[in-house]
Amino acid sequence: MAQLPAMLPPIGDDEASPEVAAIYADIRKTRGTDFINNFWRVMAHDPAMLRRTWESLKEVMGPGALDPLTKELIYIAVSVTNGCTYCINSHTAAARAKGMDDAMFTELVSIVGMANETNRIVTALQVPVDDAFLER
Amino acid sequence: MAQLPAMLPPIGDDEASPEVAAIYADIRKTRGTDFINNFWRVMAHDPAMLRRTWESLKEVMGPGALDPLTKELIYIAVSVTNGCTYCINSHTAAARAKGMDDAMFTELVSIVGMANETNRIVTALQVPVDDAFLER
Amino acid sequence: MAQLPAMLPPIGDDEASPEVAAIYADIRKTRGTDFINNFWRVMAHDPAMLRRTWESLKEVMGPGALDPLTKELIYIAVSVTNGCTYCINSHTAAARAKGMDDAMFTELVSIVGMANETNRIVTALQVPVDDAFLER
Amino acid sequence: MAQLPAMLPPIGDDEASPEVAAIYADIRKTRGTDFINNFWRVMAHDPAMLRRTWESLKEVMGPGALDPLTKELIYIAVSVTNGCTYCINSHTAAARAKGMDDAMFTELVSIVGMANETNRIVTALQVPVDDAFLER
Amino acid sequence: MAQLPAMLPPIGDDEASPEVAAIYADIRKTRGTDFINNFWRVMAHDPAMLRRTWESLKEVMGPGALDPLTKELIYIAVSVTNGCTYCINSHTAAARAKGMDDAMFTELVSIVGMANETNRIVTALQVPVDDAFLER
Amino acid sequence: MAQLPAMLPPIGDDEASPEVAAIYADIRKTRGTDFINNFWRVMAHDPAMLRRTWESLKEVMGPGALDPLTKELIYIAVSVTNGCTYCINSHTAAARAKGMDDAMFTELVSIVGMANETNRIVTALQVPVDDAFLER
Repeated sequence: MAQLPAMLPPIGDDEASPEVAAIYADIRKTRGTDFINNFWRVMAHDPAMLRRTWESLKEVMGPGALDPLTKELIYIAVSVTNGCTYCINSHTAAARAKGMDDAMFTELVSIVGMANETNRIVTALQVPVDDAFLER
Repeated sequence: MAQLPAMLPPIGDDEASPEVAAIYADIRKTRGTDFINNFWRVMAHDPAMLRRTWESLKEVMGPGALDPLTKELIYIAVSVTNGCTYCINSHTAAARAKGMDDAMFTELVSIVGMANETNRIVTALQVPVDDAFLER
Repeated sequence: MAQLPAMLPPIGDDEASPEVAAIYADIRKTRGTDFINNFWRVMAHDPAMLRRTWESLKEVMGPGALDPLTKELIYIAVSVTNGCTYCINSHTAAARAKGMDDAMFTELVSIVGMANETNRIVTALQVPVDDAFLER
Repeated sequence: MAQLPAMLPPIGDDEASPEVAAIYADIRKTRGTDFINNFWRVMAHDPAMLRRTWESLKEVMGPGALDPLTKELIYIAVSVTNGCTYCINSHTAAARAKGMDDAMFTELVSIVGMANETNRIVTALQVPVDDAFLER
Repeated sequence: MAQLPAMLPPIGDDEASPEVAAIYADIRKTRGTDFINNFWRVMAHDPAMLRRTWESLKEVMGPGALDPLTKELIYIAVSVTNGCTYCINSHTAAARAKGMDDAMFTELVSIVGMANETNRIVTALQVPVDDAFLER
Repeated sequence: MAQLPAMLPPIGDDEASPEVAAIYADIRKTRGTDFINNFWRVMAHDPAMLRRTWESLKEVMGPGALDPLTKELIYIAVSVTNGCTYCINSHTAAARAKGMDDAMFTELVSIVGMANETNRIVTALQVPVDDAFLER
């Protein structure tokens, strides 16, 4: 599959500095898999960015008020709206691993499509926010 | 609350044509409330658009593979990414009515923020899609 | 109507430098009206930007292969998709002055909404471009 | 032409369920061509979504207040602003079939570019909406 | 200045939990000012999000390879492109405090406008990436 | 590297009209290189658009209040936020030629990512602009 080359080449396990290797190890342990995707391997050129992004993602996508599959669906919704191909592919794979089937996926796509449609209709018609929505 | 005026004035119950009145009645019946928000009242200037949008939204947001609250969270995620103030306010109100509490809301916001951040990082670094993500 | 203040105050006719005054005069002559909207009056703080933007806009929106009303409809479509409130208001006023009625406006809004919906569906489903579309 | 694979494989005529086959038939009849593009064939995995989207698109892009070519130009303007490659390719082909020549296409591109530029300038300078634009 | 109310009310100093108070103190110390803007005060409803976001921002906007003013200009460029009014106002104030004058601001706006224009032209014309740009 | 074909084929030096050839010559002279990238060669199908865009870009990216490298960083920030692959590749090459090293690039990416994150958080929480930011 021909794709444009990354801005910086992915860093393999044998090229990783001790700092990067430690983060790779934590990703493997947290996710329970040996596989580390290109996102982390390219970002590893800036170890501080790698650490910061991984620590934040681990916290945001970890246990909380929303269940893990719902979190992935939200991630896909944003990635589709932004047109990020890599992100759609990686989080769709993650969502499928957490139980998303074809019917859930196409329903998600329908909602994302519909939300983008009504967002623009509202903006074009300049609909004023109803007082009822401002009661907190 | 001073806002810019709508492009076309909201159509009240007493101004509604029979076609519009029938859709207003279906919105009230489907949602189990007498309240009809400005989105529908402004769109009512084009009865075909009102009918089409309402029929689609009723189908997409109705019973399906995903639960009603999850659907609202997805709607908010898209609306935030598009910067649609009206949509954020209306769907946040809807999500709260379906059980979203403050902890769920701020966690949703954290995920939407994080997804927007990593979407751009991926785009900037031009990360190639891993072969593993292309196995369907 | 309370709005946030401009980043730089609009420059009135009596405050305009000779360079700015000459561009104001050309805007008035080209448009056949004495009215100069805030877009130009705020931008006038940078006369080179004012001149460059006005010369480009005059050329792009002037006589060409597409008729003046179609050009305004395209401008509105982009402004809605970007969520630029000022631009939607100014170009809707311009389109109405060139013949856009309510039916044309709501049909435009329907198309913009629909295009935004299908754009996201296509992106989410990662639909491959058909060979037929690549024949130029 | 190597592209990433669709999220779900396109559904051929011989794989189509009766419900999908009926919609394929309506697309062929409405458009007066045997060709059905990948957008519909991938979406066919969710027959309700296929039906809903096709019915809406047929209505929105059918006879109305705006002529067919103008509608396609608006569709392209939105698709370019959203960066949807598939949509740009499919609607450019449709617009050419309805009479768009090279001069109209490059003029469209100029307007879309210019609108995106002034949208951002307006946003950055926080230009207040002129009272004149709020007279409806 | 009438604005829509925040989704959650800003948390004042006297309402802050010890965890929030400690972050407020670090913001004050790091920035050398007693002023804490609404961004942090609203986010304080989720102390983990407040801590994570502040720690990341402090690191990203702190000393590094780019000078502080350049960092603020980049932040404004993104905020304008996303249409985030609050962000444009807060980072424009920060940039001015770090030395941005009117000429630098309008030049920044010109570049952001131009980049948005050429981004769309490139997308519409589907310009293929030159081999020369792929040599890393 | 397989990419989708341009909407209109790049115009080589030997196919250029006198008007296009003169602009090609000015690009070469201004940039001090014989290389003319595909952006200009595809746009050359509309000589007026080529002239207008080149004249504007030459002025905006030429000597001014900001240094040449800062201007390229701003261009990249916008291009990443818009997801314009061609633009990211061309302006990253330009920035590297003007002195951007790996550390500056990854720091730029961190800022762009962070700004996109906080832009969405602000939008979701509907943070009101602080009075302090409105003092001009």
